[in-house]
Parts: sequence; C-alpha cells; structure tokens
Amino acid sequence: MPEPATYAAAGVSLEAADDVVARIAPHARSTFRPEVLGDIGGFGGVVRVPGGLRDPVLVSSTDGVGTKLDIAEATGRFDTIGIDLVAMCADDVAVQGADPLFFLDYIAVGRLAPEVVEQIVSGVAEGCRQAGCALVGGEVAEHGEIHGLELAGFCVGVAERSSLLTGAMVRPGDVIIGLASPGLRSNGYSLARHVLLDVAGLPLHDVADELLRPSVIYSPVMAAMRAQASVHAFAHITGGGLPGNVIRALPDGCRAVLHRRSWPVPDIFSTIQRLGAVTDDEMARVFNLGVGMVAIIDRDAVDAAVASAPEAYVIGAVEAGERGVELR
Amino acid sequence: MPEPATYAAAGVSLEAADDVVARIAPHARSTFRPEVLGDIGGFGGVVRVPGGLRDPVLVSSTDGVGTKLDIAEATGRFDTIGIDLVAMCADDVAVQGADPLFFLDYIAVGRLAPEVVEQIVSGVAEGCRQAGCALVGGEVAEHGEIHGLELAGFCVGVAERSSLLTGAMVRPGDVIIGLASPGLRSNGYSLARHVLLDVAGLPLHDVADELLRPSVIYSPVMAAMRAQASVHAFAHITGGGLPGNVIRALPDGCRAVLHRRSWPVPDIFSTIQRLGAVTDDEMARVFNLGVGMVAIIDRDAVDAAVASAPEAYVIGAVEAGERGVELR
Repeated sequence: MPEPATYAAAGVSLEAADDVVARIAPHARSTFRPEVLGDIGGFGGVVRVPGGLRDPVLVSSTDGVGTKLDIAEATGRFDTIGIDLVAMCADDVAVQGADPLFFLDYIAVGRLAPEVVEQIVSGVAEGCRQAGCALVGGEVAEHGEIHGLELAGFCVGVAERSSLLTGAMVRPGDVIIGLASPGLRSNGYSLARHVLLDVAGLPLHDVADELLRPSVIYSPVMAAMRAQASVHAFAHITGGGLPGNVIRALPDGCRAVLHRRSWPVPDIFSTIQRLGAVTDDEMARVFNLGVGMVAIIDRDAVDAAVASAPEAYVIGAVEAGERGVELR
Repeated sequence: MPEPATYAAAGVSLEAADDVVARIAPHARSTFRPEVLGDIGGFGGVVRVPGGLRDPVLVSSTDGVGTKLDIAEATGRFDTIGIDLVAMCADDVAVQGADPLFFLDYIAVGRLAPEVVEQIVSGVAEGCRQAGCALVGGEVAEHGEIHGLELAGFCVGVAERSSLLTGAMVRPGDVIIGLASPGLRSNGYSLARHVLLDVAGLPLHDVADELLRPSVIYSPVMAAMRAQASVHAFAHITGGGLPGNVIRALPDGCRAVLHRRSWPVPDIFSTIQRLGAVTDDEMARVFNLGVGMVAIIDRDAVDAAVASAPEAYVIGAVEAGERGVELR
C-alpha cells in the first residue's frame, strides 16, 4: 500500500489560505464605499447599483500587468504592482466615461507565501483607494511549484447610459490633451528588460526603482476633467502606444496629428531607445513615451481641461482626413 | 551598435493579437443577451442593468480552474476548460441568489498560439451560453516563453436586494439537497494527478477523459429551484469539499448532518481513494464526491425542489446544535 496521499503533500495547503484571508481582509475593507454590502469572506462581493441614475450601464475590464510582474518577482518587491493592476483596469473603465465602482483580483502562485500575497493586495487596495473603487473579492490560487506568479484584475464601473463616451463625438478641430506618465506604466516591459538587462547588461538593482515605478491612476482626474470640460473621448495608452490606442477613439474621417516635441519624454524612454538602438516607430508603438492617457476635447474647453489635471499638455489636434494617427 | 531591438524579438507579437481578436469575436457574440451594448473590441464591455428591479445589487466572483489546466495543457485539449472556468465563477454568483449577467476572461500564455486561445474561448462561450451570461470582454496576455498558461474568470450577476441569499434563513428542520456532479469539477486536481499519475502510474491518456470532464453549470437549475421552492441557502462545493463549504451556509446553532450513502459517488472518486489509500476525511475535504452544489430548503418544498433539478438527492438535514457539518 502506498503512503496515504494528502492534499498538502500534493502541493496545496488549505490552512495557509486562512492566514491569507486574515491578512487581506483589512486591506480590502479600507477600500469600501457605501454601496458595498456584506463583507470579505463570503462567496462573492455584493455591491448596490449607485442610485440617482436613470439608465445605469456597467462597464467592465480585465487586465494584467504583463511582464512588469517579473521585475517584482526578481526584486522581491511586491508592494506596488497591485497599483499597476488597478491602473490598467480602472482606467480602461474610465475611458468609456464610467466611474470605477468595484474591483476583484486573481492571484495565482506556485507555493503560497502569505506575506507576498499581502504585499500584492496592499498595493491593489492602495490602487483601489486612488481610483475610488471597492476591492470586494478575489481569489488566491496555489498551483504547485511548477507554476509562476500570475496576476489578473477585474474592474466594473457604472455610468449613465447617455454619458458614455463612444468616440462618436470626436470631430475635426478637437484638441488632443496628453496626461503625463512618469514611467512605463505596465507596457513594453518585454522590450525594456531585453534592452536594459540583456543588451546593455545593466544590473537589475540599478533600474529596479524605475521599472517598478507605479502607474498613475488617471480615473479621478478624468472624472474632474469631464466635470469641467467637454470631453469627446479618452484613449488609454497601453500596448500599441499612442498610434495604436488614439486611433481607437477616432471616427471615420478624423485624423489625429500629434507633435512629438509638445510634451516632455521622461529619461527612461530615451535611455531605452539609445541603449537598444530602437527606431522611433518601434518606440512609439511599444511605449507610452510619457503620455499615459489622452483626452480629446472641444477646442473651447482647452484651458478648463488643462487646469483640471495636475500635468497635462496640448499634444495635437484632430484634422479632417483619413482615419489614423500621425506622429510629427 | 546593437541590432535594433523590436518588441517581437523580445517575445511579444502585437500582430498575432489581431488574429486572436478576430477568432474570439464570433464566440463572444454567440453569448450576447439584450442588455449588452456595443461590441467586442472596444476598451471594455458595456451592459445595461436589467430593468424591473427595485433595488438592484451586483454580485461578483473571480476564480480559476486550478491545476485542471495542467491536464488540458498536457493533453492539448483546450475546448472544455472554459466551461469549467464559467462554472466556478457563475455558480459562486448564483449561490448568493443572483442571476449571472456577464463574464470576462483573462488568459495569459507564454507564446501566443491563436488556435489554443480560440479553443479556450469557445469553451468559455459554451459555458456562458449554459449560464445565460454574456461574454463581454477579456484579455489575452503574451508573457514570453518562461511563463505557463494561466486562466482567470470574472462573473457579475444581478439580484433584487431583498432576494439575496444570506444564509440567515437556514434553520433546524431544513432539508439538504445535493445536485449531482459526475466528476471532479475543478477541485482536487493536485491530489487526483498525484494519485493517478505519480502513485498509480496510470498513463495520462487513460484518465484524460475523466479528468477533463466539464463541470456542470448549476446556475439555471438553481434559478428554476428558487422559482419552484423556498430555497434558504446554496453552497458551492469547491475546495474544502462538503464540510468546508456547507458550513459557510449555516448560521450559529445550526448543524448540517449529511448521510454518505444517500447519493451515488461516481467511480472516479472511489478509484482515487483506493489507488492513493486516501482517508475518508481527506477525500471529503478535497473532493465534491459527486455533489457539486447543495441547496438547503424548507422541508415542505422537498418534492418541488427535487422535481426542478435533473439529478438531485436528499442528502441530509439541518439540526439544532453546534455550527458544523457532520458526515455520517
């Protein structure tokens, strides 16, 4: 007869899971807003639809942080990667004109290390507080040692149906505003690591602060901007860069013309370009180049829009022409 | 000067992503329900809150399929694992008395194989059609070859606030109904693999059909049962088995007494127990043992409840006593 097999011997400890729930709960509670009913630990989060909306619609998004997670793993610094996770999801929700309402995270680990999970969730909670959404649930899955860490986020926002931003309002003459990103957010990490660590051979320690710099969460500024100015569309600058994302906000017959020297490009991007001999086109297609969110607004609203954001630049305009994005 | 670095050389192909979106879209559209606005491919899914609810609440859940995913990878059969993903999330939502409304999936791959992603999403779409929820968004992340496959699901359901099942209605005298599960669902795979493949040395090919058997999605039956009978609580039998999950539905002073011989245990569980010399307690703590969902109902509603489900058994009752679950 074989030794009696147990779940723990096969790679999963149900007991460690209790420790994790106890560590996570206070972080999650710190994000609660009045719509949250019940508490962490049930089968799932329960949230009231905010009142006062005539025809409420739910806008949802899921995303991860790409290979930025590898930097967190390699450095053992997990306290801000959750901010990036919320930024990716909540800002995708805000782009459509919705207010982030609640968030859930999914964390898969090889072997459960409760203190690592707590660090990750503390960052998720910080991101949720910044975005104004409640962390109402999550899953921590232990998959055994052959698996690496994986992180996924889910955000649901709510909007009045008539206030959704569909891109149909964008027209020639609109002004394009860029909201500053001091770092890479969560995009371009495969290339950044390849250039900085493999090609240039820099020690990870020297670039870790820069590579782990938390993403700006734009959703509160976007809400302020919508309150102050006539915003016609937003574009979240993720994979695909400015060309690949601004185009998603453009209707037929509208061409976005952006001026490269109209905003300051943070040093990290020029460093990557120089060390990797990366072409201008490839840089623009992979990185945000210092603009993490774009707002397309009525030209009469430029002053109000720029005033409502802490660091905003007029970076271009919409012209009549073939649908596309041109970087001059 | 180094070779110009590109994103593709660093492990990510933005072009293959377009192929994936084209393959996924028809599967997602096949799940749409009238509340869905817009289409796949925007920044995120948009869904109306269903009308006719006085105080609508949103119930959400996130989950994965555990190491069942490893079986799919080892066999190259990815067409049903998405059903499991929907089952885990949608049934957690239904447990609280909500109707699954929409779903998002997160798929992380090492190197993008569009046909694998399409197979996974076709299963997710099948699961969504079964659960009646719309697949309105998702993320496919390519993380480079050092990473394995990972899968996370996210489901949001809607309920009238006053119809939420909180467990407060459960009382001594209630009857406990078990809904049949023909296989493991998505729990206990680390132990099942350890016993069947490592300890017993069975060829994967011989047990693949059993190990990949899709999870039953109970949410439609649960809705039918709520319509026909006074359901006081549900419990989704996932990690922790019957003891670990039925207890979550019990208020203080209520004890669930379950009778082991009151439902048929599928062969796969007895095979695992025999080959692994697994104790009865460990089996009950790790596997569903043939009961994937439990309903706790008013004793007057037993006939109506059993009649509303295709395969349901009276498996026990709630007694007055110390809060806990007893398997006799």
